[in-house]
Amino acid sequence: MVTAITWTNAETPSIRVIDQTLLPIEERYLELQTVPELVDAIKRLVIRGAPALGVAGAYGVALAKAQSDREGWDNQTFEDAVSSIRDARPTAVNLAWGVDQVMDASALGVDAVVERAAIIAREDEEANRQLSRFGADWLLQTIGKDRLRIVTHCNTGALATAGWGTAYGIIHELHQRGAVELVYADETRPLLQGSRLTAFELMKDGIPYVIEPDGAASSTILRGLADVAMIGADRIAANGDSANKIGSVALALAAKRAKIPFLVAAPFSTVDLETPHGQDIEIEERGDDEVLSFGACRAAPKDARAFNPAFDVTPHDLIAAIVTERGVTIPNSNPEDNSPIFFAANTREESQ
Amino acid sequence: MVTAITWTNAETPSIRVIDQTLLPIEERYLELQTVPELVDAIKRLVIRGAPALGVAGAYGVALAKAQSDREGWDNQTFEDAVSSIRDARPTAVNLAWGVDQVMDASALGVDAVVERAAIIAREDEEANRQLSRFGADWLLQTIGKDRLRIVTHCNTGALATAGWGTAYGIIHELHQRGAVELVYADETRPLLQGSRLTAFELMKDGIPYVIEPDGAASSTILRGLADVAMIGADRIAANGDSANKIGSVALALAAKRAKIPFLVAAPFSTVDLETPHGQDIEIEERGDDEVLSFGACRAAPKDARAFNPAFDVTPHDLIAAIVTERGVTIPNSNPEDNSPIFFAANTREESQ
Repeated sequence: MVTAITWTNAETPSIRVIDQTLLPIEERYLELQTVPELVDAIKRLVIRGAPALGVAGAYGVALAKAQSDREGWDNQTFEDAVSSIRDARPTAVNLAWGVDQVMDASALGVDAVVERAAIIAREDEEANRQLSRFGADWLLQTIGKDRLRIVTHCNTGALATAGWGTAYGIIHELHQRGAVELVYADETRPLLQGSRLTAFELMKDGIPYVIEPDGAASSTILRGLADVAMIGADRIAANGDSANKIGSVALALAAKRAKIPFLVAAPFSTVDLETPHGQDIEIEERGDDEVLSFGACRAAPKDARAFNPAFDVTPHDLIAAIVTERGVTIPNSNPEDNSPIFFAANTREESQ
Repeated sequence: MVTAITWTNAETPSIRVIDQTLLPIEERYLELQTVPELVDAIKRLVIRGAPALGVAGAYGVALAKAQSDREGWDNQTFEDAVSSIRDARPTAVNLAWGVDQVMDASALGVDAVVERAAIIAREDEEANRQLSRFGADWLLQTIGKDRLRIVTHCNTGALATAGWGTAYGIIHELHQRGAVELVYADETRPLLQGSRLTAFELMKDGIPYVIEPDGAASSTILRGLADVAMIGADRIAANGDSANKIGSVALALAAKRAKIPFLVAAPFSTVDLETPHGQDIEIEERGDDEVLSFGACRAAPKDARAFNPAFDVTPHDLIAAIVTERGVTIPNSNPEDNSPIFFAANTREESQ
């Protein structure tokens, strides 16, 4: 299992990340020593994936604190630096969540923040392993087959998290139980997290897979070639509406028509209780070049413009189940019923 | 308007095509002088698009006849050569249709076949212009807005036809009436016919557009950013089920949910009356490399395998209207009703 993000203790400490923009061609690690370096790495998707961003946010506060100590920042400069991390990507709720989890400790010094961040990382991996067991149990029971054919989108594996993975974690868990027949990994344009990262992890973990263009996913599902479609999430509203990489909702629409389950897997930290409805989720729009080029290869006419939203929102009624480390939550199947299905203290799924 | 395919009279005659694999970076024309050259060009998608393939099939018979005369083929060799053209791509019904339209004339010599093929090309362009007027009328009346925001997929323009275009032809017609606000052109992986070819034509025709990743299309529709989604077709079954580039059915599913019309535009020659149901349409699977790379840019791990179906099938109940040069046909909205909606002599839409 690859590790996407760790803390390096040194005279000038740093956050060590695998440069995901270079995978699978090259496995290169970067040591980020300053806040601007971290913010740039987050914006460029060197490090990405909602749960991994939570850990990046937490270690980011430690990095800001270390830089502040080193350079003698005043309080405002420190807070601005933390805000720049918090706001590096608008849709991913985990980034701000990670920052907020450790801010209390910043008064106690770098080590205290690092310690708190390391706990977040460990808890994220544990949450992923837990939700993966829940998800695998639920799928095998619901579908009633020994081996599953799975469509997934984007990357939700060890690279996207502090470890193990969310939707990918369920696949990994199923694989360990001998229950994966084939994974259809959507390539996930524009940045190809599927063909670059998910395929890389599937290969390393020895799980049988094929890469398909995003446009093929709906028809793979409609043709009866898949038993389940599952994805991660970047933000889940209280009513269950789930924001994830563009292309996700296409799988959900096809799964509904094909009558196979569409499953969302994420740590509970992805649930944004302050956001009642998916319509309230801000959709990040990214630069044109990601769409108009493919790596170094230009694909579009000179002067062409692109529309490049990073996420779409799957309405809760298209989702068969949302799996977190707290259990399996079944969203309302009525699209008009937007009452909350997640709560801070007692969640509905805890009764399951 | 670009011309995708023409016949060149010369001592060694040839089919002249614009090499669509090089667009939009380079406008290069090829002169195909032999049947193997033509078959290779069809397989590599140098020339593609259902109606253009019909014309290629017809001129292909002339090319085979010329090569036969030149090289003194026996009848069997000639027929094998024609079959190799006919079968160069399995899903596109127009290719075989084009061949069949001119085979009678082959006994009369090359010139007779060329004359017949030229008529097919002219009639295709006329059919496209006619269906474009029908489609534009129907859309403006049905939607009731002055200017439309349109999602389209793949390339259905002059490059895909003998001239003018099908779904693109309707866009072009709407543009001439001042009725296009914005076109969302899906890039159309794996071969990017949208960002390479449709964007090229939109740019040349001065129609406002943005290129979006295929995965964005569903959410563009669900977010209310589009008034209509429309595509061409490679084969239409008698019940209205329509095969088109993968990714098409995702638009149809989203359009159904968003309650906007999903429209299929094609010349009547695309209707395969012998195919009662979409399930009977053979889906061409293409090579792995198209998915794993783009041009010289590799995206996937070494040894990765791909799933690369060229087409998907949109069930008739997701289609608001099928527009041909004969008029507008409204498919059955009941998914269980698979009775034919197209007929050889009298088509239902002729009564409209």
